[in-house]
Amino acid sequence: MNTQPIGVFDSGVGGLTVLKALRRTLPAEQLIYLGDTARLPYGTKSRETVVRYSINNADFLVEKGVKLLVVACNTASSLSLEELRKRFSIPIIGVIRPGAEKAALLSKKRKVGVIGTAATIGSSAYQEAIHDYARDIEVISVPCPLFVPLAEEGWFDDDITRRIVERYLQPLQEAGIDVLVLGCTHYPLLKPVLTQVMGKAVDLVDSAESVASQVATSLKAKQLQTSSVDMSPEHNSTFYLTDCSPHFLQLGERILGFPLNHTEYVDIG
Amino acid sequence: MNTQPIGVFDSGVGGLTVLKALRRTLPAEQLIYLGDTARLPYGTKSRETVVRYSINNADFLVEKGVKLLVVACNTASSLSLEELRKRFSIPIIGVIRPGAEKAALLSKKRKVGVIGTAATIGSSAYQEAIHDYARDIEVISVPCPLFVPLAEEGWFDDDITRRIVERYLQPLQEAGIDVLVLGCTHYPLLKPVLTQVMGKAVDLVDSAESVASQVATSLKAKQLQTSSVDMSPEHNSTFYLTDCSPHFLQLGERILGFPLNHTEYVDIG
Repeated sequence: MNTQPIGVFDSGVGGLTVLKALRRTLPAEQLIYLGDTARLPYGTKSRETVVRYSINNADFLVEKGVKLLVVACNTASSLSLEELRKRFSIPIIGVIRPGAEKAALLSKKRKVGVIGTAATIGSSAYQEAIHDYARDIEVISVPCPLFVPLAEEGWFDDDITRRIVERYLQPLQEAGIDVLVLGCTHYPLLKPVLTQVMGKAVDLVDSAESVASQVATSLKAKQLQTSSVDMSPEHNSTFYLTDCSPHFLQLGERILGFPLNHTEYVDIG
Repeated sequence: MNTQPIGVFDSGVGGLTVLKALRRTLPAEQLIYLGDTARLPYGTKSRETVVRYSINNADFLVEKGVKLLVVACNTASSLSLEELRKRFSIPIIGVIRPGAEKAALLSKKRKVGVIGTAATIGSSAYQEAIHDYARDIEVISVPCPLFVPLAEEGWFDDDITRRIVERYLQPLQEAGIDVLVLGCTHYPLLKPVLTQVMGKAVDLVDSAESVASQVATSLKAKQLQTSSVDMSPEHNSTFYLTDCSPHFLQLGERILGFPLNHTEYVDIG
């Protein structure tokens, strides 16, 4: 039994979708979340910069004594996982591989769509991970740079959002995909409109649940799990942000379902 | 005569609209531009973080020996000008006051609209600056968080952009303004659609030209100007960016009308 916490980082609060799944799957574990809100977004930036920021984030969490690190940001997972694994000896789990595996298992037509930031799509990380599981799957990838700002503006289920979704997803509709990977932690907020546009026959894959299962498997395999359940689920998570914006707190509360009280602000640059 | 360069910084490449105006107004001056592309955008972040980033940027330019500093970012001008003036002894010119003055002079109906990032609008900097010139002017301010991502996506003159513009600007249309301040250096890229929605009777005020005039006045007053005209306008500007993204280079070229060759990447965090 190991009572050390699990560390989770994202460029902002989108990764709270992953934290939420971890809380459900592993209610006994302590979680430390770091959102790099001062430097977000990562998805428009270069590999070099994203790797540098990811190392800063991992350094911070490793110093807090985490036993396992979850990179809950798709852009950071696409670009910096290898570099992080070189530098840190604890198990590190990204969001690409679990999502890719789930998509490969679900697709009957063998045609999978992937949407994400410009950096994630540009890295081809999902395509490579899907082909690692199943070479016969055709992967059609589309960057959707406006989805994060739309979700942050709170236009979740909105006529303008629907038109933007239609424009971005048109090549995926034309290709006849039956599985769509939501390759960015913000995108689950747009699920209603994504389902409306793609139709119910297309499965939306959001990595959060798959990541949580993989973390559980990894903890068990390495005998790192704990079992002492804390009585209150609000108290087993600690939140750090690099910038304080009421806006992020609102979005975070929307994702988690409870307010991010006791959030601490840290300068990790 | 003083041949030292003028320093200009912005969170990204939007401030190149100001650099362009400076090049036209002061063709003899050497210009050094710093775009903090690694940490952009500033407009969604807290005062504390924006002030910290602005100080980093100013430190970098002051070390390069600039004789005058232009803060070409509206968010940084709104939040950090006072702090920068406390720390640095060279003249510092922001984009708020010149734009506010121009708007106050132009408005016959005494009703001015201001659009900008959440941080700029939240600071009330434009409202205060306009009231410093003319207390009788009614100022209606609206944050437009999606305009920067739309401009960066290249949807300058687009049906979806028009609908978003209509939604944001509706309160300004209803208020019957006759002057609209473009309180963000990205917004001039959306001028065609802004004019289409507001009508030609509404003057759009973009600070760039006013800032360039104020810089010229300040250099003359302090006897800091130079007069040796460089033969090639491409060679009197030096560009530094904190992150290298081809996307920013494309947008920069669109603004300047020539490619940002010889751009250097610096880590100033």
